[in-house]
Amino acid sequence: MLQTITWTGASARLLDQTKLPTETVYVDITDERGMWDAIKRLVIRGAPAIGVAAAFGVYLGVKDFEGDRAATLARVDEVCLYLATSRPTAVNLFWAVDRMKRLAHRQSAPGAIKQSLLDEAQKMLEEDNRVCRSIGEHGYRFLQSLLKTSGTAGPMNLLTHCNAGGLCSVKYGTALAPVYVGAEHGQAFHVFADETRPLLQGSRITAFELKQNGIPVTVICDSMAASVMQRGKVQAVIVGTDRVAANGDVANKIGTLGVAILAKHYGIPFLVAAPTSSVDLSLATGSQIPIEEREAGEISRGMGKVTAPEDVEIFNPAFDVTPADLVTAIITENGVATGPYGESLGRLCRGG
Amino acid sequence: MLQTITWTGASARLLDQTKLPTETVYVDITDERGMWDAIKRLVIRGAPAIGVAAAFGVYLGVKDFEGDRAATLARVDEVCLYLATSRPTAVNLFWAVDRMKRLAHRQSAPGAIKQSLLDEAQKMLEEDNRVCRSIGEHGYRFLQSLLKTSGTAGPMNLLTHCNAGGLCSVKYGTALAPVYVGAEHGQAFHVFADETRPLLQGSRITAFELKQNGIPVTVICDSMAASVMQRGKVQAVIVGTDRVAANGDVANKIGTLGVAILAKHYGIPFLVAAPTSSVDLSLATGSQIPIEEREAGEISRGMGKVTAPEDVEIFNPAFDVTPADLVTAIITENGVATGPYGESLGRLCRGG
Repeated sequence: MLQTITWTGASARLLDQTKLPTETVYVDITDERGMWDAIKRLVIRGAPAIGVAAAFGVYLGVKDFEGDRAATLARVDEVCLYLATSRPTAVNLFWAVDRMKRLAHRQSAPGAIKQSLLDEAQKMLEEDNRVCRSIGEHGYRFLQSLLKTSGTAGPMNLLTHCNAGGLCSVKYGTALAPVYVGAEHGQAFHVFADETRPLLQGSRITAFELKQNGIPVTVICDSMAASVMQRGKVQAVIVGTDRVAANGDVANKIGTLGVAILAKHYGIPFLVAAPTSSVDLSLATGSQIPIEEREAGEISRGMGKVTAPEDVEIFNPAFDVTPADLVTAIITENGVATGPYGESLGRLCRGG
Repeated sequence: MLQTITWTGASARLLDQTKLPTETVYVDITDERGMWDAIKRLVIRGAPAIGVAAAFGVYLGVKDFEGDRAATLARVDEVCLYLATSRPTAVNLFWAVDRMKRLAHRQSAPGAIKQSLLDEAQKMLEEDNRVCRSIGEHGYRFLQSLLKTSGTAGPMNLLTHCNAGGLCSVKYGTALAPVYVGAEHGQAFHVFADETRPLLQGSRITAFELKQNGIPVTVICDSMAASVMQRGKVQAVIVGTDRVAANGDVANKIGTLGVAILAKHYGIPFLVAAPTSSVDLSLATGSQIPIEEREAGEISRGMGKVTAPEDVEIFNPAFDVTPADLVTAIITENGVATGPYGESLGRLCRGG
């Protein structure tokens, strides 16, 4: 499988996802400014991967700094603050830089600070693999129980939006982890990948990685999801998330809310795969999640052609919030929560 | 206002809508093969405009034919059959060529056949203006009653999908006709235009013509419609149609079904503007409407860049069918039908 992020010994090597599916290009990030830019421009994207990337960014921003303990810690804080401004919605970013900062402040000398930051970033990379694998196991078992209940045989027919596959994380991904784990157990799948305007993470990235990994996939425009559901071709929807509020409201790539409403209309289960690092228990509801708005050009000049009149008003929110009552289940590395989420999510975040 | 189609005396002059919004280019169509190609490639599109264009196509295919009455009529039939294969979903195409064919068969000589075909095509062009204007009047009054009921002042906040504006017809359009008529009466509007993947008729054409005509418009990706509805920014949805079945099921541009489901979820009225020439009383339900599937490249290479992996499976239906129970009202040139449509639609088709 492709590696989204690896540590070379001197740099964080990122698969440049803005170039997919036509080019497989890696970029070596050697300082915090490079990492900020890579996160902002979506060279690396997806909540889990952003967390790990930011952790390496903290180390890269501190490793060549010369100064005593206090000055080094001030530098750590400054780099963390800076990296946290790259994108506002994915909570994993804040979770990762906070974790790095707290760790640094427990060290007694500049050398120990730097070494602990590098060790921790590498640990987070390995953890991400374990967490996604575990989401895959839980998710696959849940899908089995769900689709057996409805008496369906043959391939599991899923629909996903955006990319919460291997390329949103270090390897397995979140929403696609149950597919990869299921495939290892011999289960057949077919996945509809919403292309996911404006940046087409579905057609460019999800389709690319599923095809690469031998999972049958069909690309559709976002506007076609209702039609394939109406034709009975989807048994379950599974998506990732950038932040889950304590009540189970889910922020995810723009368009997720619409898919959830369609799924409800057609009685199709709507599942969210979420490492507990994406759950923000400090927010009571999803209305408190900041929604990033991105520039108009992503829509009007996003794919090589001018596709809207010059100076026309454009609204480009990058995420939306799906209310908890549209969410059938939230799959974490510690187990599966179903609504009402107030109690169940908190329990899973404390280890299950 | 821009003219979608005009008769120059020797050719049908079409605004090439594949070039919008960056270029305003006209093409002169001088034979039936050119017209078939223009309809197929969406140089001209939108149910009412396709009907008028096909009518001129029939004349262009016959005007230089040399032969007696029987041979000329055989030629008329052949040209009509050929033009009808250009696109399968919009019933106006079949309605128009049928009307031309029936008219031709009532003439007594080759010269009269040709003259009657030209006269009829020009008459259909004028009729289209009257019909769309009338849809605008009925639709605007209906919107007034609807939105007054809900106690709203200020601009009418609408959302539309694809283009059923002036550029889908000769001038006023269908779904946007109530907006243009309302604006003439001093009513303020704001319209969200779904960009409408894969061919972006919303961002390229609807946004272009609304801006050109001074109506405030905001372009969004199709996947953002749920989010703007959730934020309370849409009071009514209005779309056009390519074919309405006798029970009120509505075929329209792919994505319309999804918008209708979202509107229902948020309690927003969902209106369909339909000239009676789009109503196909011969079909009991929408399941009998043939749905055109177009080539994968429209999705994977549609905008100048390769946006999906090579050879990935792609599903590209051009239309979907919205069940009548999601449709609040159907606005025709003869008045407004509300569900159940069995009786009301038939009455309006017979003149109101």
